[in-house]
Amino acid sequence: MDSDTFRKLGHELVDWIADYRDRIESLPVMSRVRPGEIRARFPSTPPAGGGRLREAIDALDAVVLPGITHWTHPSFFAYFPSNASRASILADLVCAGLGVQGMSWQTSPAATEVEEVVMDWLRQMVGLPDTFTGVIQDTASTSTLTALLCARERSSNFSQNREGLQGGEPPLVVYASDQVHSSIEKDALLAGFGKKHLRFIATDRAHAMRIDALAEAIEADRSAGLRPCVVVATTGTTGTTALDPVAGIAGVARRHGLWLHLDAALAGTAMVEPEYRWMWRGVEEADSLVFNPHKWMGPGFDLSAYFVRDPQHLVRVMSTNPSYLRTAQDGEVRNLRDWGIPLGRRFRALKLWFHLLDEGVDGMRARVRRDVENAHWLADRVDETPGWERLAPVPLQTVTLRHVPQGASDEARVAEHNLAIARRVNEGGRAYLTPSVLKGQQTLRVSIGAEGTERRHVEALWRELLEAARAESGGTPGPER
Amino acid sequence: MDSDTFRKLGHELVDWIADYRDRIESLPVMSRVRPGEIRARFPSTPPAGGGRLREAIDALDAVVLPGITHWTHPSFFAYFPSNASRASILADLVCAGLGVQGMSWQTSPAATEVEEVVMDWLRQMVGLPDTFTGVIQDTASTSTLTALLCARERSSNFSQNREGLQGGEPPLVVYASDQVHSSIEKDALLAGFGKKHLRFIATDRAHAMRIDALAEAIEADRSAGLRPCVVVATTGTTGTTALDPVAGIAGVARRHGLWLHLDAALAGTAMVEPEYRWMWRGVEEADSLVFNPHKWMGPGFDLSAYFVRDPQHLVRVMSTNPSYLRTAQDGEVRNLRDWGIPLGRRFRALKLWFHLLDEGVDGMRARVRRDVENAHWLADRVDETPGWERLAPVPLQTVTLRHVPQGASDEARVAEHNLAIARRVNEGGRAYLTPSVLKGQQTLRVSIGAEGTERRHVEALWRELLEAARAESGGTPGPER
Repeated sequence: MDSDTFRKLGHELVDWIADYRDRIESLPVMSRVRPGEIRARFPSTPPAGGGRLREAIDALDAVVLPGITHWTHPSFFAYFPSNASRASILADLVCAGLGVQGMSWQTSPAATEVEEVVMDWLRQMVGLPDTFTGVIQDTASTSTLTALLCARERSSNFSQNREGLQGGEPPLVVYASDQVHSSIEKDALLAGFGKKHLRFIATDRAHAMRIDALAEAIEADRSAGLRPCVVVATTGTTGTTALDPVAGIAGVARRHGLWLHLDAALAGTAMVEPEYRWMWRGVEEADSLVFNPHKWMGPGFDLSAYFVRDPQHLVRVMSTNPSYLRTAQDGEVRNLRDWGIPLGRRFRALKLWFHLLDEGVDGMRARVRRDVENAHWLADRVDETPGWERLAPVPLQTVTLRHVPQGASDEARVAEHNLAIARRVNEGGRAYLTPSVLKGQQTLRVSIGAEGTERRHVEALWRELLEAARAESGGTPGPER
Repeated sequence: MDSDTFRKLGHELVDWIADYRDRIESLPVMSRVRPGEIRARFPSTPPAGGGRLREAIDALDAVVLPGITHWTHPSFFAYFPSNASRASILADLVCAGLGVQGMSWQTSPAATEVEEVVMDWLRQMVGLPDTFTGVIQDTASTSTLTALLCARERSSNFSQNREGLQGGEPPLVVYASDQVHSSIEKDALLAGFGKKHLRFIATDRAHAMRIDALAEAIEADRSAGLRPCVVVATTGTTGTTALDPVAGIAGVARRHGLWLHLDAALAGTAMVEPEYRWMWRGVEEADSLVFNPHKWMGPGFDLSAYFVRDPQHLVRVMSTNPSYLRTAQDGEVRNLRDWGIPLGRRFRALKLWFHLLDEGVDGMRARVRRDVENAHWLADRVDETPGWERLAPVPLQTVTLRHVPQGASDEARVAEHNLAIARRVNEGGRAYLTPSVLKGQQTLRVSIGAEGTERRHVEALWRELLEAARAESGGTPGPER
């Protein structure tokens, strides 16, 4: 492609994105295509000749867009907020245009040093002490896997340089609450600990980890000759944004020599507002923590922030040093290939930088407060409305609720009813939320925090829920589908 | 940021990238900044107020660009080709603009199905049988970690669901050649095998794995009560693009029940040209293979293609199924979160699609042939010029060479001399290559394959090398620095 064509198509696609974002509210939030429908629109063999990019661009509206679930839609209440601010889109464009491979400092010093700068800004923004150093990873799952590997190697005095986990030593054990994100289980299994050495600690009525239960589990394992290795605490669980008592867990971890990893994937963003920082009190004692700016903060996926207290340990676990990767500056600089699992790295710091300059810390604070207030508004409606239940406290922007039809006492029936409500709302296209099971109870999770979500969108969602519940209860039918 | 500002800045940045790519030849290939120089240009605290994106955009020329090592420069001969075609830049823009999170089919069916389509195109393009299914990963390091984890679980009958690697069973062993990429060692250590259970198999004079040595190592380990688990073969090693005998290795793997993973990170792209496919003869017997379209093929980093013969096994190793990730379509569709380590996924298939339509398979073939011919041209110059040595065959686009000054017999002196040549060339700014050690000998690696690299750039590199060698040999000084 020549330069002029690139300019022309580039301008066209910038406008296409702008138009898309301008009219996003008119689109159904959740894609309505059926399995295989999009695949069927493509030829089954690759193009022999080139020069056909126009076809792909024209297919964006006709083929791709119907297959998009719109994560930046203001009525997206599913999973977690995943914003992609316009400033961060521009940064991703620059990232792609520079084509940087930032594995080593020398392979693009700017990629490393801008990351150092903005990750330190981020540390300050969420109130972490300067004993933490940050590095960008792709996702919280990868960050937590990294943490578990680092914990494993600290507890085993670098078993990886000897027999790995295959030396027949007493097994290492991982602890997390029964509300922990599924990726922690996956990561623990991938790291080789084994399901038998993973303890899900009971939680209290607010769905937070019980410190006494943690301490008991550790002591039981020690008595049984096992080696407690790492505890994962969560600030803001996926199900209900429950807040594990970090300071208390840190005390137990310290007493028993465990690595403390804090998963604040969603909630970390809230800490830009100092009044919320009580939620992770004790955080300074964590050995590692992850939060995802690509969730609620604004820059587009993927941008996970991983902070550690001992970067040298991280580097020791992750570094390899073959001759073809050595550079003249080794020792003076950070080679970020040694700060995570993949060798190659994009210039992701650009999008955090662009986003921060565009929105400012004050802008983020205002947005976070707005979203929490919207969640409280919805929680109040649930609490005051007969037939509706709220199943968890609402410290942040997630409301876990359900409708119990009159006379229903059977959990199976309530579950089916709420799944039907979710289906009706989601298929209706005007909002999208996630059904979830909380300790055996079927719930509906409303996660607020898209950049464009105002009070009116939450009000509209509440109307949708009321109407869907009425229709599914056999009352007046809901609006046309 | 409002829509109009986004349009205006978007157009400006598209033009900025176009200008950058237009004038890239006038820039020094390797960044010349000193450690800390870029960091020092930034404030140490984050911006409180927003609306300052203009500052970042203005800093692109003044602060960022001097800190970029230009991977798409036609005189970039370091590491490996890492192209970022203009078509793929446009696709990355669309990807960022859509803000898709493709973890599940439902969270954007297009992200999953376009990936299914283009990965099957890719499979056909490199001549893989339809017994393979492809999925996009970020890097070859991650793909290979995934392969080792899958191998570990197959050999141990899903130990992760029991005691992991901590059950005291006979240790699993990993095999690869002594020329294997460093990430394989890193991955094996991260997967918990332990350095003691990693065998680097001797290579022949062409730096390819010796099948007899592999078979012997496996037999010795079996006799010692260990469990041989996985062998990593390489088509196109990092040092010299050596070609492990895949069919022979597959025979050994089959006989002993090992998982065969093929690392063709760079060389996979060459297989678009059928005449090169002898290089990985036997590939159909691999259990998994990785190659990186983001290297030589054209779409920008990160786009690693991971192919497997048994996707169900991959999913069984990688899947978790919490209630909040279940969707109505589970069972009917691929949920790509279960096809790799991270939960979240960008819509990376877009850039493969855009690139393929723009360049076409024929265009890629022509470019690959051009690059191999350029490498042969350089190899011929080395072979015919007194004082220069070529240290490996040149099946593809990498030439491993060095200069031996008259009368030098001491390896330490030759090494210092060649490191000085590399320094002089790289700091001169007109080309960039990687010094590397091959079996104790210091070499210079010339890796050809940037999209814009024509014969004249390789000729210019050869002149640079001759001049640098002369200057470092104490002859006439090289050109002004």
